[in-house]
Amino acid sequence: MELYEYWLGRVESRLRELFKPGGPPLLREAMGYYLFQKGKRIRPLMTLAVSYALGGSEEDALAVGCVIEMIHNYTLIHDDLPAMDNDDFRRGLPTCHRKFGEAVAILAGDALLTYAFEVLSQRENFRELSEEDILDLIRVISQKAGAGGVVGGQVFDIEGHKDIEETNRMKTASLFEACFLCGGIVAKRRDLLKDLENLGRKVGILFQITDDILDQDGYVKIFGLRQTMERSREIYEEVKKVLVGVFGEKSSVVGGLVDMIYEASLKRSYGDDKTPQS
Amino acid sequence: MELYEYWLGRVESRLRELFKPGGPPLLREAMGYYLFQKGKRIRPLMTLAVSYALGGSEEDALAVGCVIEMIHNYTLIHDDLPAMDNDDFRRGLPTCHRKFGEAVAILAGDALLTYAFEVLSQRENFRELSEEDILDLIRVISQKAGAGGVVGGQVFDIEGHKDIEETNRMKTASLFEACFLCGGIVAKRRDLLKDLENLGRKVGILFQITDDILDQDGYVKIFGLRQTMERSREIYEEVKKVLVGVFGEKSSVVGGLVDMIYEASLKRSYGDDKTPQS
Repeated sequence: MELYEYWLGRVESRLRELFKPGGPPLLREAMGYYLFQKGKRIRPLMTLAVSYALGGSEEDALAVGCVIEMIHNYTLIHDDLPAMDNDDFRRGLPTCHRKFGEAVAILAGDALLTYAFEVLSQRENFRELSEEDILDLIRVISQKAGAGGVVGGQVFDIEGHKDIEETNRMKTASLFEACFLCGGIVAKRRDLLKDLENLGRKVGILFQITDDILDQDGYVKIFGLRQTMERSREIYEEVKKVLVGVFGEKSSVVGGLVDMIYEASLKRSYGDDKTPQS
Repeated sequence: MELYEYWLGRVESRLRELFKPGGPPLLREAMGYYLFQKGKRIRPLMTLAVSYALGGSEEDALAVGCVIEMIHNYTLIHDDLPAMDNDDFRRGLPTCHRKFGEAVAILAGDALLTYAFEVLSQRENFRELSEEDILDLIRVISQKAGAGGVVGGQVFDIEGHKDIEETNRMKTASLFEACFLCGGIVAKRRDLLKDLENLGRKVGILFQITDDILDQDGYVKIFGLRQTMERSREIYEEVKKVLVGVFGEKSSVVGGLVDMIYEASLKRSYGDDKTPQS
């Protein structure tokens, strides 16, 4: 846990260091509005944990983790828009478009997404990565964030796509796949990329299911709480079973984050949940 | 002119080859809706011309020109949205959000922007460029398309920023700067990048002024047609004066495109324009 606290501090300060976009001050403010609110930072932490367990550079994992966090935050800005989820509040504060207007919110998302690639393109943000490694990071992140990943999943969600697990895989798990893959690239363990992608996918689905349990939404609405809890436990056990095989002796650093995700769902469903458990 | 026709054909077919996003068919359709309408393709042509004049690889200039065209088209999708310009028609057809709905249009823009970087990240799309060269392309394009470039200019435009030339420089000229810079990177002429950026900026502003003359908008609304025409001629002459110095004996290939831009504005203002000239 102390390691996570230390990393969390590093993520907060590195995010601030890396966030130096030009242009209008208003745009900059809107781009940073969600990014610098208190968040769990689960994606950068996961990237750091994967890289750490595989012996990668902390500096490099930190930079790419921050980039993934920027991309996650751009998706939140656009997801909240009136044409999408039409949310007025996030984390108890007005949503980006409620604070800055819809046009600026759209543009802030666009600029934050673009800026994420600018950070990746600057070699000085990385220490031990070759240009080939950096191009691999850009390829992974653009694939996982784009039409075949997060954005495609959002379209499936809007369309009411029948397979919720595929929607979740694309919409949420894609970015966890990116965290695991990028952690592996930072650690120069290309032999593990297929395993890391599969593991990232499972952890991402576990994360989405936990989110649905906490919000009584998505999965829970379709399958009910009991079946959702069973699926959650099943995925959790699958993940835990392969962790040592992939990460070896330092697997508990990744496992600890997975535990945190899983335990959050247990707390909600057996703890402060008012509906009776059967 | 035959060279431009040939390039135009190559741009159309290369765009189709490069455009292979995954994800939902509806999203793919929305992403390609503007991209595959008949357009002038001035940005890819300019990139090809700059690279040609400096001895760069046609294949590589073509690929990066197509990427810039993708980015240009994502900006059109987002600019047309109800929260922005709220346009119902573009090129005589329903705008992207009128055809696919606002949510899908926002997501199609996001996915197209992301996809542009995916194309850049794949080394197999380039022949003679090193990984360092490709990272330079990504850096230039992300800087020129982002908060300090196109997106920032759009925010200035919305805010009614007082300096229209700065707004135009960011909103429109930034992507022309990217064309000139990327043409120079493809040709491995890093010694010329500063000159190319300046030239691209001027050509971009000339392009925007021509657009304003054709639409009787922007510049013309503020300064009137006569003063706008004078500014247009002034920039045109500045550009023509330095072309040979930068590009040498093949400068006319770039110059021909600049002439086309300038002449379009003349035709409108002295030709089919109904308002009297003074």
